[in-house]
Amino acid sequence: MNTRIGSKTKATVWVVENGKMRSRQDYLTTEEPLEIRLLPQKKTVAVTMRTPGADFELAAGFLYSEGVINSKEDIQRMSYCVDGEQQYNIVNVELRAGLIPNLQPLERHFYTSSACGVCGKASLEALNLREYPEIFPGPIVTDETIYSLSTQLRAAQSIFTATGGLHAAAVFNAQGQLLNLREDVGRHNALDKLIGSALLSDELPFNNHIVMVSGRSSFEILQKSLVAGVPIVCSVSAPSSMAVSVAKEFGITLIGFLRGERFNVYTGLERISATSN
Amino acid sequence: MNTRIGSKTKATVWVVENGKMRSRQDYLTTEEPLEIRLLPQKKTVAVTMRTPGADFELAAGFLYSEGVINSKEDIQRMSYCVDGEQQYNIVNVELRAGLIPNLQPLERHFYTSSACGVCGKASLEALNLREYPEIFPGPIVTDETIYSLSTQLRAAQSIFTATGGLHAAAVFNAQGQLLNLREDVGRHNALDKLIGSALLSDELPFNNHIVMVSGRSSFEILQKSLVAGVPIVCSVSAPSSMAVSVAKEFGITLIGFLRGERFNVYTGLERISATSN
Repeated sequence: MNTRIGSKTKATVWVVENGKMRSRQDYLTTEEPLEIRLLPQKKTVAVTMRTPGADFELAAGFLYSEGVINSKEDIQRMSYCVDGEQQYNIVNVELRAGLIPNLQPLERHFYTSSACGVCGKASLEALNLREYPEIFPGPIVTDETIYSLSTQLRAAQSIFTATGGLHAAAVFNAQGQLLNLREDVGRHNALDKLIGSALLSDELPFNNHIVMVSGRSSFEILQKSLVAGVPIVCSVSAPSSMAVSVAKEFGITLIGFLRGERFNVYTGLERISATSN
Repeated sequence: MNTRIGSKTKATVWVVENGKMRSRQDYLTTEEPLEIRLLPQKKTVAVTMRTPGADFELAAGFLYSEGVINSKEDIQRMSYCVDGEQQYNIVNVELRAGLIPNLQPLERHFYTSSACGVCGKASLEALNLREYPEIFPGPIVTDETIYSLSTQLRAAQSIFTATGGLHAAAVFNAQGQLLNLREDVGRHNALDKLIGSALLSDELPFNNHIVMVSGRSSFEILQKSLVAGVPIVCSVSAPSSMAVSVAKEFGITLIGFLRGERFNVYTGLERISATSN
């Protein structure tokens, strides 16, 4: 697998520092809408603000992690829309003949018809209604391995990014070796691209893998990790209460504040061994 | 105006540091879904993962910044749903009699019926189709004033936050005095709470104000700032290309990477004066 560069846009900026002003050329993270359409239904199922690049992976990963499709084989082909001038901002996903996509999971994003009862518990129960790959006991990893992930993520990002504006999601093997990384202006999109890439290369589930995201861990990050079968999820920053609930419910090891030689373990401590203990 | 504490959830975490492991009590940022319903239409218009607190402000700010309502008077009353056990996760917004809410702007979030043509240009044009408060020439502020904002934001956050997991949005006057601050696990929610608070207190538009957000500036942050009439928008981190496009199109001063005695100006340099220049 190879990692791709996030798309950049050149711009002039004025740097103000210690009371002095100068102009310089800089790069902005490109943010453009991507519309995902299902064929033959001709149904638009998402418009997401994303960084162009790895668009087919994003479309596949989104549909898979949201439960609209269940395998790579559910997708017959993907193509950019060819009418009109904005052809690279619309991906047509042609489903295999006869497949009736499950659009119900998408409703939680916005419109919902649920009766009174939207709550953390209900959200967890809704997760339980779907089928996921079993979260394996998976690897036991040392603290040294975990420490190395953030350094690797930062190093890999510095190669690909000049804008400072991109979130990253990366997958490592149990020995802490970086296998793949995707970036996007949106946190969820970075993870969808990572999962989509693996789906299209027959590398799912991530049974013995570690996933690391650059920002915080939210409900959605854990929900997508669950679909990908990830036993260990790490983030640079804090997890939310719902992220911890999902991790606990499904047996995922959740690590936060991973910086330098330090991290917090919120759930699934049994997969972590500390060298000095 | 007063600032409120973001809701926290207590948890036991294991801290791993330099090979040693210890457990301690910690706080997580609470993340729970909030459903926003319109009455008498009985229509759910949003389910957002948010940090509980300032829920009415969030509902009002969301509806206003998305263009569903146009004034405080469009809202007759707001209340939590009282059937069922999860009553604090549903807000009923009763609209004034006869008001037909404009639900079209919400479609861009997810389902859309647009023809081929979703692109940055189309998104900008869609913004142009709506009515906004005019962005005033507004204040001219010194670099010293701008430097002070990030220090104040961080100081205000450290008082209210023990979790490290909350985004913040704050509004300052032209002299750099902090007027209000809201926090949430979601960046957009923090800004919606801030705007909703001002809407409900008749403090909009923010014609002579500065808004600062803790994360990055995206299309949505600028779109919401535009609705609130903000002439100067600052962020701790990078803006996206679409954020810069919206700022340029509507005459908003956009500042990024505001840290210590340093920041970048992307658009609207005429509102900034550097003391040593």
